[in-house]
Amino acid sequence: MATVLADPLQREMLALGEAARAAAAGLALAPRAAKDAALLAAAQALHAQAGTILDANARDMAAARAKGLSGAMLDRLELTDKRVAAMAEGLATVAGLPDPVGTELARWARPNGLDIARVRVPLGVVGIIYESRPNVTADAGALCLKAGNAAILRGGSESFHSSRAIVAALAQGVVAAGLPEAAIQLIPTADRAAVGHLLRMAEHVDVIVPRGGRSLIERVMAESRVPVLAHLEGNCHTYLHASADPGMAVAIAVNAKLRRTGVCGATETLLVDAEAAERLLLPVLEGLIEGGCAIRGDAVVRRIEPRATAATEQDWRTEYLDAILAVKTVAGLEDAIAHVNAYSSHHTDCIVAMDEAAAARFLREVDSAIVLHNASTQFADGGEFGFGAEIGIATGRLHARGPVGVEQLTSYKYLVRGTGQVRPVQ
Amino acid sequence: MATVLADPLQREMLALGEAARAAAAGLALAPRAAKDAALLAAAQALHAQAGTILDANARDMAAARAKGLSGAMLDRLELTDKRVAAMAEGLATVAGLPDPVGTELARWARPNGLDIARVRVPLGVVGIIYESRPNVTADAGALCLKAGNAAILRGGSESFHSSRAIVAALAQGVVAAGLPEAAIQLIPTADRAAVGHLLRMAEHVDVIVPRGGRSLIERVMAESRVPVLAHLEGNCHTYLHASADPGMAVAIAVNAKLRRTGVCGATETLLVDAEAAERLLLPVLEGLIEGGCAIRGDAVVRRIEPRATAATEQDWRTEYLDAILAVKTVAGLEDAIAHVNAYSSHHTDCIVAMDEAAAARFLREVDSAIVLHNASTQFADGGEFGFGAEIGIATGRLHARGPVGVEQLTSYKYLVRGTGQVRPVQ
Repeated sequence: MATVLADPLQREMLALGEAARAAAAGLALAPRAAKDAALLAAAQALHAQAGTILDANARDMAAARAKGLSGAMLDRLELTDKRVAAMAEGLATVAGLPDPVGTELARWARPNGLDIARVRVPLGVVGIIYESRPNVTADAGALCLKAGNAAILRGGSESFHSSRAIVAALAQGVVAAGLPEAAIQLIPTADRAAVGHLLRMAEHVDVIVPRGGRSLIERVMAESRVPVLAHLEGNCHTYLHASADPGMAVAIAVNAKLRRTGVCGATETLLVDAEAAERLLLPVLEGLIEGGCAIRGDAVVRRIEPRATAATEQDWRTEYLDAILAVKTVAGLEDAIAHVNAYSSHHTDCIVAMDEAAAARFLREVDSAIVLHNASTQFADGGEFGFGAEIGIATGRLHARGPVGVEQLTSYKYLVRGTGQVRPVQ
Repeated sequence: MATVLADPLQREMLALGEAARAAAAGLALAPRAAKDAALLAAAQALHAQAGTILDANARDMAAARAKGLSGAMLDRLELTDKRVAAMAEGLATVAGLPDPVGTELARWARPNGLDIARVRVPLGVVGIIYESRPNVTADAGALCLKAGNAAILRGGSESFHSSRAIVAALAQGVVAAGLPEAAIQLIPTADRAAVGHLLRMAEHVDVIVPRGGRSLIERVMAESRVPVLAHLEGNCHTYLHASADPGMAVAIAVNAKLRRTGVCGATETLLVDAEAAERLLLPVLEGLIEGGCAIRGDAVVRRIEPRATAATEQDWRTEYLDAILAVKTVAGLEDAIAHVNAYSSHHTDCIVAMDEAAAARFLREVDSAIVLHNASTQFADGGEFGFGAEIGIATGRLHARGPVGVEQLTSYKYLVRGTGQVRPVQ
């Protein structure tokens, strides 16, 4: 009598994990040409199957409307011809990136003649849990494939049919290039219990990448038995030092807050040196208010700009992802650094200053994944870093910090070449 | 009325974590000279307080003997003048290593003029849980300090008094150099519940490094809310390819198994090509048996060497850490690689071969942290890699794989230098 796993969903998830593990072994040794061919064939399949994909998306959209989803969420969920074409273009971009696998990261010789090389290898099986944005299905699958990893994807349940149609197209490309079909798999159900199983499959999954709201990420971090590469919120700061160029201060602050308010690199708190507040802040706040931004400020800020409302302690902690900005005056550089290190989510923070020594100190002492001098926090993006594409911005300190692109989706191993060396007994 | 934490131990652990977090902020910015001065002063303090340390160790040893600990465990626990001197020497060695913090790992310019640098920074607060080996207290504390991290140490309860005396000496060195005393802390109780609190202090601890037996590491991986850099067992293989030089095969196999049987890099299974078994294996097994090793083999092995007993499936999975070796014949290179990838703990594996193509394929296809060609698996050691010292050999795939030295105890951040760049709206 064979042992039967109690839960059919668990059985299904284990089978998915085993298939991913087997696929990862093949992908790890796949040459660049095969991986790129798979990505380009998948791009073609996305074009060819655009009709099917848009039909599936229409089904998701109808259900989402019936459920009363917000306009912003519906916009994220919706696919159009143009968006499908953009996904296909994204696959081609990833195909054009250098293959990270096999790169020699370091190589040195030991006095006993041993030749030691550190070489990039894939991570293995990557589980990605994300919100209802169908395009992430293609982006994440492509990045994992390029880095030689098998991907297990889990999009938001509202995008289930869209994601399934996209994965079918990706799989077609993968198979056409002779790679294992299980290279990119979608969890085949919208049942939330499936995520619980995924988080416990430490034998079959090497890392979980959660993307989304705080509650999702906290659930994943609390439950997961698999290592997590977390993408937490971006409570980002822009600090106007007294030495800031006034025009640059306006341009950077307005762009950092308002270019897109819904991205993790958007500035949420503006700090300004008290001694320069009068001079620097007024045109900045005018620019922001003109752009439709609400200002929440301390007493000094409200005196300078009476349209500002009062900020509370909670505002220093808030990622608005909206046209709202908390504004605070600080006593100077040290005070600014202390505020940022206390309230930042360690994602992205910026100083605007002409004083090079002040900038150098801010860059050194602010403990965030990305620290900028005289540039908008909205540059916190793998594409803007030159990574070609990214899966998100990691806010943890282990493995990868900041934008996670193909290189960050790899591990390494050591190759040690000898000529018969044995280790002395000592 | 102030809120009172229910559990006094939990309160104590949180205070420890807060102190570590504060110390880490200071250490992250400490110049190399201060860290090295602290390590050298700690080495002096170890010498000066050798008497106190040996007294504390005598107390631990007496209790361990009364509890009936094995000879091997007593040997690990025991300190002598010579061992205290070796610990002090270890601190001086770490002081002499380059400071990893601040190293520019990469730097590039973007078309828009942004200058992006990836720079090493400390991990933050490192929790290390280890067996009853007092010398690890000094080694681990020193490596963390050099990398700018605060350390929270938890040695085996049998070594509690020894570790406390060692940490007192380290703290003296740290304070003498003007660094925060909480840079190196020992959990102030042998109560096992303290470990449970440590594993849940995700706000105050950035990574847990467990060292020890399988049950400890599995408990840590199951319970921890803090990311874990695991050091699992070393089920290491040496594979004799048909092209192996017979003399080299004997030298490497005997050294890999018997130089020290209790280390994680010791070979536990020997594989040999069936076609060459008769020729290659006999002298190897003679050398091993002469050295006191028991052989467990398959039918072919037992025919060649009648003193071998029968191996079972379980033997292919076993890390003996003893003078016992499992020996198996394989059909050839492919079969050997498949066996290693199926049974290895992905720690360290070796091929002995003169055929360069066979060696290249083994190096490429074996999925382990360290893969060797014509060298003993006992080279799996940070010191032998030139890292100066190590905290252990990581067997996971995230962050660090293989020997964990000062560089592996760091993270990085991005410094982005601009001249007023803002991101286009698109």
